[in-house]
Amino acid sequence: MSFKSDVEIAQEAKMSLIVDVAKELEIPAEELELYGSYKAKVSLKTWERIKTRPDAKLILVTAINPTPAGEGKTTTTVGLGDALRKKGKKVVIALREPSLGPCFGVKGGAAGGGYAQVVPMEDINLHFTGDFHAITTAHNLLAAIIDNHLHHGNALGIDPRRVTWRRVLDLNERALRFIVCGLGGKANGVPRENGFDITVASEMMAILCLAKDLDDMKERIGKIIVAYTMDGKPVTPNDLKVTGALTLLFKDAIKPNLVQTLENTPAFVHGGPFANIAHGCNSVSATKYAMKLADVVVTEAGFGADLGAEKFLDIKCRFAGFKPAAVVIVATVRALKMHGGVPKTELVGENMAALEKGLANLTKHIENMQKYGLPAVVAINAFPTDTANELKFVEEKCNAMGAEVALSEVWAKGGEGGLVLADKVLAACEKPSNFKFIYDEKAPIKDKINAIATEIYGADGVNYTPAVEKTIQELTNLGYDKTPICMAKTQYSLSDDMAKLGRPTGFKITVRELRVAAGAGFLVAITGEIMTMPGLPKAPAAERMDIDNSGKIVGLF
Amino acid sequence: MSFKSDVEIAQEAKMSLIVDVAKELEIPAEELELYGSYKAKVSLKTWERIKTRPDAKLILVTAINPTPAGEGKTTTTVGLGDALRKKGKKVVIALREPSLGPCFGVKGGAAGGGYAQVVPMEDINLHFTGDFHAITTAHNLLAAIIDNHLHHGNALGIDPRRVTWRRVLDLNERALRFIVCGLGGKANGVPRENGFDITVASEMMAILCLAKDLDDMKERIGKIIVAYTMDGKPVTPNDLKVTGALTLLFKDAIKPNLVQTLENTPAFVHGGPFANIAHGCNSVSATKYAMKLADVVVTEAGFGADLGAEKFLDIKCRFAGFKPAAVVIVATVRALKMHGGVPKTELVGENMAALEKGLANLTKHIENMQKYGLPAVVAINAFPTDTANELKFVEEKCNAMGAEVALSEVWAKGGEGGLVLADKVLAACEKPSNFKFIYDEKAPIKDKINAIATEIYGADGVNYTPAVEKTIQELTNLGYDKTPICMAKTQYSLSDDMAKLGRPTGFKITVRELRVAAGAGFLVAITGEIMTMPGLPKAPAAERMDIDNSGKIVGLF
Repeated sequence: MSFKSDVEIAQEAKMSLIVDVAKELEIPAEELELYGSYKAKVSLKTWERIKTRPDAKLILVTAINPTPAGEGKTTTTVGLGDALRKKGKKVVIALREPSLGPCFGVKGGAAGGGYAQVVPMEDINLHFTGDFHAITTAHNLLAAIIDNHLHHGNALGIDPRRVTWRRVLDLNERALRFIVCGLGGKANGVPRENGFDITVASEMMAILCLAKDLDDMKERIGKIIVAYTMDGKPVTPNDLKVTGALTLLFKDAIKPNLVQTLENTPAFVHGGPFANIAHGCNSVSATKYAMKLADVVVTEAGFGADLGAEKFLDIKCRFAGFKPAAVVIVATVRALKMHGGVPKTELVGENMAALEKGLANLTKHIENMQKYGLPAVVAINAFPTDTANELKFVEEKCNAMGAEVALSEVWAKGGEGGLVLADKVLAACEKPSNFKFIYDEKAPIKDKINAIATEIYGADGVNYTPAVEKTIQELTNLGYDKTPICMAKTQYSLSDDMAKLGRPTGFKITVRELRVAAGAGFLVAITGEIMTMPGLPKAPAAERMDIDNSGKIVGLF
Repeated sequence: MSFKSDVEIAQEAKMSLIVDVAKELEIPAEELELYGSYKAKVSLKTWERIKTRPDAKLILVTAINPTPAGEGKTTTTVGLGDALRKKGKKVVIALREPSLGPCFGVKGGAAGGGYAQVVPMEDINLHFTGDFHAITTAHNLLAAIIDNHLHHGNALGIDPRRVTWRRVLDLNERALRFIVCGLGGKANGVPRENGFDITVASEMMAILCLAKDLDDMKERIGKIIVAYTMDGKPVTPNDLKVTGALTLLFKDAIKPNLVQTLENTPAFVHGGPFANIAHGCNSVSATKYAMKLADVVVTEAGFGADLGAEKFLDIKCRFAGFKPAAVVIVATVRALKMHGGVPKTELVGENMAALEKGLANLTKHIENMQKYGLPAVVAINAFPTDTANELKFVEEKCNAMGAEVALSEVWAKGGEGGLVLADKVLAACEKPSNFKFIYDEKAPIKDKINAIATEIYGADGVNYTPAVEKTIQELTNLGYDKTPICMAKTQYSLSDDMAKLGRPTGFKITVRELRVAAGAGFLVAITGEIMTMPGLPKAPAAERMDIDNSGKIVGLF
């Protein structure tokens, strides 16, 4: 039996014209800004027309801590959306945009998989509607303005050693992580240490994804701390007088992008911030449009529920005022066995002992969602090697906690393979939702970090390095303490040690750095080494890609 | 009297829907890829339908050597197009895309001016359809692949000191001109000297603008020399196995962008290579589409006729097989007086002596166009300070050489202000055209450079530095000598000394560097210092820009 690649399946899709997809949501053609026949931005005018409507049911798809076995969170999100639409619901899916860096590096594409994809996948994976390019440009224009200020006399007294605003590219660029710029003599700027992050790590990305509109965006951009002066005062785009210019680079990027699934379900694919140093969800603007255009909105967040769902709930929902109705936690039997200590090469064959041990990871995430007052449904992505015993065991354990379990076959069957899951999700949405945050954003910084660590990660407490203790004091003095916390932690473990699988206990996490993202509106608490610029592997996915003279692409998958 | 800014005039424009602009060219809606309602890419299928049609008359708009007084070449190109359309001709205008760097630096916009602009000007000046972002991405992906190759064992034996492929951003980024990358230890690449150019200086840009189709583009990209091995062999994207991946990043960028003038004349705005180290014209693909869709095509080339027209004729027309019908040379009385030695502050008031001296610059360019066998028409952009005597003098001198002169008032009046010019251009098109190149591309490198220097610049000869003598020998041995020459020279003088205005004589030019652009298909002969990454001024145009919550922009002009 031979499988079709994702790009082959996508190229065979019978796409509807995007004007017809929009028609399903009663968006008239004149409110669309088309990008070809199958992509569109929805105009700012649409919001004025729909903003007083009641909100849709908001369903978050999250996952256990990821393993090399793969969980299929985006695939489940897409397939669940298709399944709900098959059941007659008015559905919109809201996803993040993929980054070009991983696309040419390892992944080769990120728009779902198998028969649960968003299309046109080649466009979504390459350039798309240019949102990430707008972020790259705005981020780097701000960086150029800072160095230009240093070059032309430094009237603000910026300390060149304390420029915190680096540069970005939407590529995996190992060799640009640490550079020295401004070399070449007096005509060529001021020499200083510098470096590049990947575009999705830019605070501009976090802002684009949290801003409610252009005014909100402008206000947030104006507050970004890009450097400190010689006497320790923060410097912002407002000080540099370029807030307007930076905001106008987002005049189109702020509008949500409408595409469709292989089964023609409407999908917003918009924004894609890092899930460690940022909050890892698609844009507030896409979700808020979706919430007014549909009865049910299915969305996802990055990494596992300890990072993705926590930030979705405590950061995104807090800023946007969203109240989710239910959470889907995606797992596979294979991944649970890995959490139980089985190496990837030995996953075939029933192994109840490992499954029981690994299941603790899943049940901790169920518990966590219940702490937020949200009903959880477990979606098990089916693999041919799963045994009936294994599946039954997972189901019984989850049911005992009050969480329904559904086998999902959306990768192989599309929406048809998600009908059982859809039923259980709809039932969960009918349960009373008692949504509450895990911490009060006005609380002291340490109280907030402590709440996340103990309640969500299951830690015994939090250690702070002396440098972080000092930063906490400084930021509190400057008045930057009354914001949500964005935890940057390994995605592979509930702890800050990626080797601790399953449900670790008896650990503390250590915060090694605390950064202020004053524009995004949160503090980033960093535990361990966080990579903000990936590298390419020895044989990058780019080597397998090609295009013919008619424009047909191979090698995205 | 108060003048409206360009962006104010543009925002008041009564644009036609781009599908209706296309209809004028008999392009059906299904052959358009819309980017909103007023921009579209024309599909690759269109070419298959139109390619056997007869060619339009091709008119090149060029200029005297530029001065700080300004000449208005793009404005004249747009206005002439509008005027020809008023006369009932089926017209397409073909222009370059503006770069974001100068937009935020000094210029604040580059899409014509006054009542002769292409619109939507905010979109054209910002991001547009993403072509430049595609170039930036492809260029930097290739750079990342090279550093990744060095990092993962350097199987090809690349000399890290001889990586000629730098990185690019579409910004004015002084501080990135010279950097050291790969710092931070073993996990972060191989340390080496590096730097950034502006995107328009990328060889990828030259390739996009010279490629006939995706296959041609792929072939050219594959041949780019990005580095040399330890034993001096060139290394290309083909060696690095990423030619396909690089080409697919251009799947949309290769298609010409259709917009319109303020008077709804169809205009392709596509590609924009530097006019010094590259050939400075819009894409071959836009011009070739235009040539099959219209009766008359009006296009422009960068800088003055010694650089822009020479390269348009000897490089672009040679590669594409275009035969121009006539050339328009743009001048102003003010600029001619500056060429006669008058400083910018003293241009008001009749000055026949200075005018006579400066006119020699214009007449040399007329002579040059006659050497190409092309009829020339002079367009004098009218200023209120021009006197009747001055205008009469210019006209008589040009007429005596066989060149018609027309006063152009398109900045103030749009196409209506270009009707006289249009008549004279149409008459020139009826003259026998005897188009020939200035040199044979198969001739030895020095013969070709010598022909341009003596025939076009009026030099007595060419000096070569010892390093260039050596490069000429090397490139000839490697077989890279049988291509056109792209001269990189100051745009302000016919010589290589920017202080020599008017028509300098008794000079030689000095070639200080010779670079091979094996993908673009030419050699770049560099005279003097050529800046490939501009800097921002002390008070950048960005400081004056803003946007409101409805998306309305101020500060582009």
